[in-house]
Amino acid sequence: MQAPVLSISRRTRRTPFTRRVNEAGVKGYTVYNHMLLPTFFRSVEEDYWHLREAVQIWDVSCERQVEVRGPDAQRLMQLLTPRDLSEMPIGQCYYIPIVDETGGMLNDPVALRLEEDRFWISIADSDLMFWVKGLAAGMRMDVAVSEPDVSPLAVQGPKADDVLANVFGDQVRNIKFFRFEPLLWQGHEYMVARSGYSKQGGFEIYVPDSSLGETIWDAVTEAGKPHDIYPGGPNLIERVEGGLLSYGNDMTRENTPHECGLGKFCQTADAIGCIGRDALIRVIMEGPRRQIRGLRIDSKDVGNPIEPYPVTCDGEEAGQVTSAAWSPRLETTVAIGMIEADYWEPGTEVTVETPNGSRAAEVVKLPFPQK
Amino acid sequence: MQAPVLSISRRTRRTPFTRRVNEAGVKGYTVYNHMLLPTFFRSVEEDYWHLREAVQIWDVSCERQVEVRGPDAQRLMQLLTPRDLSEMPIGQCYYIPIVDETGGMLNDPVALRLEEDRFWISIADSDLMFWVKGLAAGMRMDVAVSEPDVSPLAVQGPKADDVLANVFGDQVRNIKFFRFEPLLWQGHEYMVARSGYSKQGGFEIYVPDSSLGETIWDAVTEAGKPHDIYPGGPNLIERVEGGLLSYGNDMTRENTPHECGLGKFCQTADAIGCIGRDALIRVIMEGPRRQIRGLRIDSKDVGNPIEPYPVTCDGEEAGQVTSAAWSPRLETTVAIGMIEADYWEPGTEVTVETPNGSRAAEVVKLPFPQK
Repeated sequence: MQAPVLSISRRTRRTPFTRRVNEAGVKGYTVYNHMLLPTFFRSVEEDYWHLREAVQIWDVSCERQVEVRGPDAQRLMQLLTPRDLSEMPIGQCYYIPIVDETGGMLNDPVALRLEEDRFWISIADSDLMFWVKGLAAGMRMDVAVSEPDVSPLAVQGPKADDVLANVFGDQVRNIKFFRFEPLLWQGHEYMVARSGYSKQGGFEIYVPDSSLGETIWDAVTEAGKPHDIYPGGPNLIERVEGGLLSYGNDMTRENTPHECGLGKFCQTADAIGCIGRDALIRVIMEGPRRQIRGLRIDSKDVGNPIEPYPVTCDGEEAGQVTSAAWSPRLETTVAIGMIEADYWEPGTEVTVETPNGSRAAEVVKLPFPQK
Repeated sequence: MQAPVLSISRRTRRTPFTRRVNEAGVKGYTVYNHMLLPTFFRSVEEDYWHLREAVQIWDVSCERQVEVRGPDAQRLMQLLTPRDLSEMPIGQCYYIPIVDETGGMLNDPVALRLEEDRFWISIADSDLMFWVKGLAAGMRMDVAVSEPDVSPLAVQGPKADDVLANVFGDQVRNIKFFRFEPLLWQGHEYMVARSGYSKQGGFEIYVPDSSLGETIWDAVTEAGKPHDIYPGGPNLIERVEGGLLSYGNDMTRENTPHECGLGKFCQTADAIGCIGRDALIRVIMEGPRRQIRGLRIDSKDVGNPIEPYPVTCDGEEAGQVTSAAWSPRLETTVAIGMIEADYWEPGTEVTVETPNGSRAAEVVKLPFPQK
């Protein structure tokens, strides 16, 4: 059977870079926030090596921005997350778990503080704007919530500094991790953050107008030629090795931040004004009963789960594997899963039920060794 | 260049019927509400003729249900929509535009009233639950909002009554349009509605548990054999001919219900309690400045727009085409677009800018002739 094609329409939105992505011979797409997200160009494995060794340009426009602006912006932002935002400086990125009133994860975005009363929330795959607008409308807050025409373009890999210095000047080298700066290029202001969905280092350029997309894509590509730049995208092998979670894959609305190992981003006990506070205080009192862990699976034929793979230990239910990939570097299948408390100690030997049969596995800490 | 494949993971959720859909040789998928939606099986054109002449089984699990239940259910439902729900009987389906506080469309679902204080909202492609939960939490309503494990399975086409009578008994023949009834089958209760996203007649079966998916799929398939049943999906040609709008394609948050031709579902002037009331009263006072129309385009090479095609008239901007397909029956390209007031009279001759060049077109009423 031939693999089904992806039926594309206006609803699966193109990005400012889609034409360039297609010209570069993209081989896989997924749909993310109702938008096309390129998944690989040569092969997932080739892209993996190239990302670790050189530098890539990624169309991550699908990280849509929810802009929150106005007198109640700070209060609304704090309502969304258990992370304490009271000291968040302008020019700072924060990874913020977003929870509902029961403490269930609704998204795990990166927030940027642009001004005292103006934020962007760079979202994972759910219509977070609907939740933010609903709360703001229901509480009659004095705040404007919108999706601006802003599309992130990521430059990831060890050569990212050299490439972006060629475009924006050497000042990019001084941008600290999870900080961003407005940089002028050809008469337009681009927010440039040292961030991105890989562990190889790099930047995200927030392109402020769709009409600028191909110009900046071409400039980055040209500047990257000496460094073997090539298009890529969030890479399954690399992000599992790095322990980078994927909302909808590794966690859903069912999970609390504490189950996701994000307890360090929860200052819930302080009365900071998060809507999920009461539920999360209860979670802290009782402790999570399951948590995200890494797993090494001794088999090459595991595949990435489309439905979670059950994990057992001596015949008892021990959790599930939610993401998995063969690592050609570590020569094992690396995986992320949600593991029950009785089995989550690193070193625990478990069994993973894959479509190809039961496979032996070991619970490990995240991230996997990077070198 | 080979067409990019769709990268599938847990995040692009499988349905209770996905295994059967794959076995039947699905050729296209899209992602809808973070879930796989089959788009065609033989070809869009073959599927079109078969849908009109025989009967099809559709995996429309992606029409997820938002369940609203509790003392404030009626009040919350009315907050969501300008359609008057005060007389909505139990067992009734209502097509309800959902608007935000500015009157912008957030979804165009079908609501089902299950009990006095319990509704399902069978949603189009946006995370409507986030909006509903946000409003309910922000206003501290006494209501539970959830996504139950309910997956619609549609049976569409002229032979649908005969097929479902073979499964559920002759009582299905008496279900009136947009009514639903709980029917017992093999010990489980299925809501069966006379509804669906085609103009060929038929039903939607709300399968109440994922574990029942393959059983009911197989039973419907077996019952349909004498009637040449085959899997299908929402068909681009058929739905454009029928004037069935697609949220995200033909309308977005930018549009009001009145622009979408849904004014008849807006009883905004009565103080019914919709959050978009004030904005929509203003729209009614001024009248919409653009509205959904059909277009006949005299060319076979138009294709379905991935980005809207501009529409002009004597060099002036006249609107845009948002969906289009060659109709082998009407021997013209049928299209849906948003047309400015000066040009929306049926019979107006306009020009559509397609990737293959300018094409002459005529504004027409929707739906297109069905016979």
